[in-house]
Amino acid sequence: MTDEPEHRRLIVAGTGIAGLSAAIYAGRSNNEPLVLEGVEPGGQLTLTTDVANYPGFPEGISGPDLINRMKEQAQQFGAETKHGVVVDVTAEGEGADRTFRVELRDGTVYTADAFIAASGASARTLGVPGEENLMGFGVSTCATCDGAFFRGEDMLVVGGGDAAMEEAHFLTKFADTVYIAHRREEFRAEDYWIDRVMEKAEDGEIEVLRNTELLEIHGSEADGVDHVTLAENAEGYPSEKVDDPDTRTYDMDVGAVFLAIGHTPNTDYLAETGVELDDEGYLITQGGRGGNQTATGVEGIFGAGDVVDFHYQQAATAGGMGVQAALDADDYLDELDRARKGAASEEESADEEPTEAATTTDD
Amino acid sequence: MTDEPEHRRLIVAGTGIAGLSAAIYAGRSNNEPLVLEGVEPGGQLTLTTDVANYPGFPEGISGPDLINRMKEQAQQFGAETKHGVVVDVTAEGEGADRTFRVELRDGTVYTADAFIAASGASARTLGVPGEENLMGFGVSTCATCDGAFFRGEDMLVVGGGDAAMEEAHFLTKFADTVYIAHRREEFRAEDYWIDRVMEKAEDGEIEVLRNTELLEIHGSEADGVDHVTLAENAEGYPSEKVDDPDTRTYDMDVGAVFLAIGHTPNTDYLAETGVELDDEGYLITQGGRGGNQTATGVEGIFGAGDVVDFHYQQAATAGGMGVQAALDADDYLDELDRARKGAASEEESADEEPTEAATTTDD
Repeated sequence: MTDEPEHRRLIVAGTGIAGLSAAIYAGRSNNEPLVLEGVEPGGQLTLTTDVANYPGFPEGISGPDLINRMKEQAQQFGAETKHGVVVDVTAEGEGADRTFRVELRDGTVYTADAFIAASGASARTLGVPGEENLMGFGVSTCATCDGAFFRGEDMLVVGGGDAAMEEAHFLTKFADTVYIAHRREEFRAEDYWIDRVMEKAEDGEIEVLRNTELLEIHGSEADGVDHVTLAENAEGYPSEKVDDPDTRTYDMDVGAVFLAIGHTPNTDYLAETGVELDDEGYLITQGGRGGNQTATGVEGIFGAGDVVDFHYQQAATAGGMGVQAALDADDYLDELDRARKGAASEEESADEEPTEAATTTDD
Repeated sequence: MTDEPEHRRLIVAGTGIAGLSAAIYAGRSNNEPLVLEGVEPGGQLTLTTDVANYPGFPEGISGPDLINRMKEQAQQFGAETKHGVVVDVTAEGEGADRTFRVELRDGTVYTADAFIAASGASARTLGVPGEENLMGFGVSTCATCDGAFFRGEDMLVVGGGDAAMEEAHFLTKFADTVYIAHRREEFRAEDYWIDRVMEKAEDGEIEVLRNTELLEIHGSEADGVDHVTLAENAEGYPSEKVDDPDTRTYDMDVGAVFLAIGHTPNTDYLAETGVELDDEGYLITQGGRGGNQTATGVEGIFGAGDVVDFHYQQAATAGGMGVQAALDADDYLDELDRARKGAASEEESADEEPTEAATTTDD
């Protein structure tokens, strides 16, 4: 019996905005969720110093503060949060007998009646020479975490979205000059951030390198980043055109490189369940109108936040999806209860022993 | 020129959670939204005294407080909020020439490049005798607004969802006994609210009347509600079975009646635009994955919140949709700018006068 995995009504993977919003609602629905923190407890938002656009905080709030408030709120309604990284989920049984086996990296195994994947996305890397071996030694995916280590140096930010603009803007506090290398002419970022960056560019604190890509990072673990090799081509995407006579390749001295080029969804652990993923690994959910928008192709597994959403990726949109997932999971669990009660009474009337599923009905 | 309607880049109808969340993001995208308050400024949430499940407020927050905070946040980023009820929207022109004519109840007319419908839903009524003429005289759709007027009396709440449970629970503060009449056996409400109500039922403060419907409300404007006529049938939906011998019809003395039977979306004013509505009047949006989820069938009109969502109807889900609508509208407006610039330069090269559309390009 001691080897029997602990059974939970609902497991939520992830304690970012999506996971915690799901946990708040799941707690209120008496589903006593176990919420597993994953490799980045609090998710992407913990990397943001000032969240100005989460509706409800006109004075702004720091990412970690917002996360802590949601965590407290979830716990208040009966959610249990635990360290733990889910490495494998498998679905067992069908219909009333459906349970999930959820395995953590430390070997712990749980079973669960329903599972919400809110495990977010992790920062993407370029795969250029020098990047991997200098990661943590001058190369970083988090300006707010690491920017202050490179005070007074020139820094390079790679990317063209909100994150790249925000990080570049933030790094001006520490940097001599912040360079932004973006592979295209136009930025994908919201106007607010482009405007902030352009103000800093006028002040000479930021220099924007359009149609420019990073080809290589030079340096050593001992001395950090020394310089980078860049390519520029007026037509954009210069790394695909290095032999083009219009492509200019040059070296530039910088003391740190910050990558802000998007994220990869954390969905590998779901591969065995048969859920449908798109080409980039994002979880495909039902969507549409009405209920069950967060349902995946596998009954009992729901998805919310950056693990699904490759487009909006905002705190408020992740929170909304988390709430939907909790409500969808609650509907599923109610149905499961009814199915199990039905199965149990059928078997009792046939004078048989109740099955394991039947004995765990009343929760 | 004085009769020329004021032109706005973006108009948002509604200052509930969806409208204000859209306004926050639209402000940050430099779209200087005009946000019109409608008949119920602040929307449904202003009727809620304690919002416990909006992610980010572990200590809870009152509906009006949350709304005020979002309004302040939106204004901070350049949104302008105004009194005004939209009564008619018409689309004029196509492609780069597309504008909307937005008419308010007081006769004011605006033109806009894009429009976000976040006009929510209004409380539904039963249509039973006595209801309309006693509305405001003992009949109410808002327990938190009107409950305290009927201190010490017996009260009837009609409905079986979260709102009905929450209102019944709230009314125990004032009522002698709160009766809940629900037409079916099972409640649609979340477990949290059913549990709270059942606790109060055990204490004798609430009495639940299942499979029971309100047939008539008796009283006068001068003396308010005197009593109600109810019908009960163990199979549910008794009002459809009044002649059934198993249906019991009886009178009960109550001093107030609170209707909590759902809402009707406020979409009438969009009829002329050609947007697609479902049978109940909810706005049909694109949904799916990726961007443009809030797009309607009419380019430049977006929908968010209870005007679209007939299922989840939570503050957090409305907020998420509002943010999506603002981001979708921003993409549309960027495209429109490009199309108008293109149209303008074509016409200039043809040595013609720039059109009106072309002269309003740079905002």
